[in-house]
Amino acid sequence: MHAAVRELEAEVGRGALTVPLIAARAGVTPSTVYRRWGDLQELLSDVAVERLRPDGPPEDHGDLAADLTAWAEQFLEEMASPPGRAYVRDALLGDPDGDNAGQCSDYAAAQIAIILARAADRGQRAPDVEEVIDRVVAPMLYRILFRRGSFGTGYARDLVTALLAPREPSAGANPPLGGR
Amino acid sequence: MHAAVRELEAEVGRGALTVPLIAARAGVTPSTVYRRWGDLQELLSDVAVERLRPDGPPEDHGDLAADLTAWAEQFLEEMASPPGRAYVRDALLGDPDGDNAGQCSDYAAAQIAIILARAADRGQRAPDVEEVIDRVVAPMLYRILFRRGSFGTGYARDLVTALLAPREPSAGANPPLGGR
Repeated sequence: MHAAVRELEAEVGRGALTVPLIAARAGVTPSTVYRRWGDLQELLSDVAVERLRPDGPPEDHGDLAADLTAWAEQFLEEMASPPGRAYVRDALLGDPDGDNAGQCSDYAAAQIAIILARAADRGQRAPDVEEVIDRVVAPMLYRILFRRGSFGTGYARDLVTALLAPREPSAGANPPLGGR
Repeated sequence: MHAAVRELEAEVGRGALTVPLIAARAGVTPSTVYRRWGDLQELLSDVAVERLRPDGPPEDHGDLAADLTAWAEQFLEEMASPPGRAYVRDALLGDPDGDNAGQCSDYAAAQIAIILARAADRGQRAPDVEEVIDRVVAPMLYRILFRRGSFGTGYARDLVTALLAPREPSAGANPPLGGR
């Protein structure tokens, strides 16, 4: 079924997909599709999650900042691309109970956990996974979905740098805040 | 048309809304709705954006941290509620060009800008709007949409506190990172 969706998407485009078309390509009846997925959106949501699954562990560059920057840059590039945006939207929208969106987030969290475990093995201090989610993953996805992609070329790198940067000494009662 | 959607939503529920039903309530033909909105999703997206529009400026508590915390707590409570989640999803869903999602984000940015301008008037140092978006708004919406609402009761306050906290003195080459 997933293969049928991918093939038809390439042939007729995302907007022309219908359950009868997909069922015919997969060699099943439309009612089989409706029984399993409910509607087209739920099927496309499942396909999208599968497309968003990482191919393997993140590259090991021997350093936390390098690993996290490379991962974040690749993540942003993929998610901000037209197919990436379409998959993120599909994953969210045909997913009333939030399981598919949660799966996407779990994929990212698992990749980050690998990077942080490597840092710990090297004796590097590292933030925890949830902090990387809040400081790096969330801003990227928020800007893709809600800010019309308003970010510059160094955005992913800047988020990682700000997260890992040494804190500046306090300058008294009303200290300077970290800018970008 | 917006009033018709709101009334019917209360009467028959979100899942039973159809264009013919809404058109009948509004006293127009279905084709009038389709001409203006394309489909039900686009109409619901416009209605959702209208529902997400703030009623007025944020409360003034006389202090940046208090203003931002109160705003973030209220924003999180509204967006994480069942109707809030439905409106955010609707705003995103029927919005292929991203205008409605962008409008939602612009509403939040405008409220934040008011809070930051008040801080500046008081002589308080403040982050810029985009930094508040990245550090406070984005994590809240990401966790609502992608992490099945995985946050504790103090989450909004903790995000604001971390953003405004004085930086700790650096502890050498490998300084501690701020935890939560």
